[in-house]
Amino acid sequence: MRAERIFINARLATMDPARPGLGVVEDGVVAQANGRILHAGPPRAIEADEVVDCQGRWITPGLIDCHTHLIYAGDRAGEFEARLNGVGYEEIARAGGGILGTMKATREASAGALRAAAQGRMAALLAEGVTTIEVKSGYGLSPDSEYKSLAVAKSLGDRADISTTFLGAHGFPPELSRAEYLRLLCEDMIPHIAVRGLADAVDGFCEGIAFSPEEMEQVFTAATRHGLRVKLHADQLSDLHGAALAAKFGALSADHLEYTSEAGAAALAKAGTVAVLLPGAFFTLRETQSPPVEAFRRHGVRMAVSTDLNPGTSPLFSLLLAMNMAATQFRLTVEECLLGVTRHAAAALGRADVGVLRAGAKCHLAIWNIERPAELVYRIGFNPLHQRIWSAV
Amino acid sequence: MRAERIFINARLATMDPARPGLGVVEDGVVAQANGRILHAGPPRAIEADEVVDCQGRWITPGLIDCHTHLIYAGDRAGEFEARLNGVGYEEIARAGGGILGTMKATREASAGALRAAAQGRMAALLAEGVTTIEVKSGYGLSPDSEYKSLAVAKSLGDRADISTTFLGAHGFPPELSRAEYLRLLCEDMIPHIAVRGLADAVDGFCEGIAFSPEEMEQVFTAATRHGLRVKLHADQLSDLHGAALAAKFGALSADHLEYTSEAGAAALAKAGTVAVLLPGAFFTLRETQSPPVEAFRRHGVRMAVSTDLNPGTSPLFSLLLAMNMAATQFRLTVEECLLGVTRHAAAALGRADVGVLRAGAKCHLAIWNIERPAELVYRIGFNPLHQRIWSAV
Repeated sequence: MRAERIFINARLATMDPARPGLGVVEDGVVAQANGRILHAGPPRAIEADEVVDCQGRWITPGLIDCHTHLIYAGDRAGEFEARLNGVGYEEIARAGGGILGTMKATREASAGALRAAAQGRMAALLAEGVTTIEVKSGYGLSPDSEYKSLAVAKSLGDRADISTTFLGAHGFPPELSRAEYLRLLCEDMIPHIAVRGLADAVDGFCEGIAFSPEEMEQVFTAATRHGLRVKLHADQLSDLHGAALAAKFGALSADHLEYTSEAGAAALAKAGTVAVLLPGAFFTLRETQSPPVEAFRRHGVRMAVSTDLNPGTSPLFSLLLAMNMAATQFRLTVEECLLGVTRHAAAALGRADVGVLRAGAKCHLAIWNIERPAELVYRIGFNPLHQRIWSAV
Repeated sequence: MRAERIFINARLATMDPARPGLGVVEDGVVAQANGRILHAGPPRAIEADEVVDCQGRWITPGLIDCHTHLIYAGDRAGEFEARLNGVGYEEIARAGGGILGTMKATREASAGALRAAAQGRMAALLAEGVTTIEVKSGYGLSPDSEYKSLAVAKSLGDRADISTTFLGAHGFPPELSRAEYLRLLCEDMIPHIAVRGLADAVDGFCEGIAFSPEEMEQVFTAATRHGLRVKLHADQLSDLHGAALAAKFGALSADHLEYTSEAGAAALAKAGTVAVLLPGAFFTLRETQSPPVEAFRRHGVRMAVSTDLNPGTSPLFSLLLAMNMAATQFRLTVEECLLGVTRHAAAALGRADVGVLRAGAKCHLAIWNIERPAELVYRIGFNPLHQRIWSAV
């Protein structure tokens, strides 16, 4: 066995399901070859070109942010300020704000400008040891602007492992009727995206203010017909049985889920769909109904945690903070939070090659200046990252 | 007029009370001489040895974190994890956790170890443009350990402007009766601290689980007799009329204040006492009763915002995040948040030489990569600092 590089004197939280809990190995090494993990576990006789002494630091898999809206133009700081000054949502919308304001700016922005803005946001995630990011389109709502957004998302793959998701079903563009846009989505955009390989999955926002369950069902049917896996923004503000809908289509994940019922949780478990919890939106919207974490535990639903990074309801740029918020607001345990940004987040993307330290996985690592993994969840607004290892393979 | 350095092409949020709101100067300069601001405002004919082109960036006063418990040994990540796993407070206390666990570790730690730990925490604050920090003792609860903590706090003055606060009245040490410790505080420790100049103010924790109003009154009487200004952790978990007590002693600030009454707000206004809001503790403790912000506005109480950085109830290391939390949770406006970490935070420390950009003030600056000040409050877990200027004078 020969490695290019070996990390020694480390404590590992491997997240390997073959080990209990976080898969801890107290006296561990990680050996890397060709961008993959050759061995992660107790010391083993391995020759290596380079030996890195971790001096007892902890190594986790590089973190995974499995739900972001990273691609958009402009921000909504002005709206945020106006709302605090007592200006209502309607007045903001009339003044060209809200999601349609972001849509307009995103349509008008060049790919280069979108990429530069996204890179600035992504840098904040990477600085905390994130190595894999799911990036959604959804602020264009027209064929050209959605394809442009997905291409920009893919272009970010020079610094992180990017999964792209087509979120054309984020809202309805003002220039078309609902039926017209739905037809455009299902008959033109989804087939185009599938053929060109522009996205790894198709997502939608199923809510009273967005797509109805019936409309989402049409979108999911088209996606499935074209071989694309699906995800869903489900049951965030009301229970439209979004979790069950996602489960029916074997969704990779159902996300938000504040209003999901016991039956919805059971359906997710049966389908193997991951529940992605988004505490930043819960916080920003000052929600009071928490997702049914106890029901997810009872039914064995895997939970992931993500930033939901977006300009409106969750301008959150820290996955460490998302974990703290999930623990404090939703009472997730430390173990649930850490699995939720590694192995379970990988599952929400349909991936088995990231989010775990074991032979064959990509060698994406986060090396931390901490004494125990709980510190990654406990501290608020503190980044103990020592080094991020990202392997472009 | 000759300056050592002049910052040009800047947008200034001066916080100068002579200007409305944030005291904005759109086309501004800041000239520095001998660590002080020579001029802050519209361009003026000033010769300077060094010219810094800010390229349109915003400059605010260096931020002020006016309520921190920066000096302690150990952390409470293990307790945080145990609580999420369902272990109760009592069981944690029996196992040597809680404030007494931190007390024991702090007593045992060397000054060097305490300083090193505090420097790591402080670095997170400084990275966000903080230049002035209030640092409390209060985890020693014995003469030697409290003096040690205050000396360590002062030693941090090599990288920031430090105000020290004696918080011997944080809790009761297990080895003395309440009366004995109270006597020690009032008759030995406060006089010693006043004579040696170890602290700029005296603080206490007035709550059912800590010092009663009558006990606090004794501590404040001793402090006042020895020429020390006072502050108070008041009305955080219940209304013990802490705000009125603080006002009665002309306190610099009353802090927390979730349960303060209308009468308490009126008393603070009359005394000129600053209301320091601590949204990190509110968040971590999952409180539901917000401080009476409307009453503070109505009575003209100045509000400050701070991290309350501490290992138990607010392990928050980001003043930017404290602002976001104050806006989201307490509905403070952007202007209130920004004044709350500059001019009003300075007032909570009894200082007029920081927290404002005007001639004569210390030249502590934060230069930001933002398009408008609201961005400093709107984003969650994102640091747009371009440069921190701290002048050791």
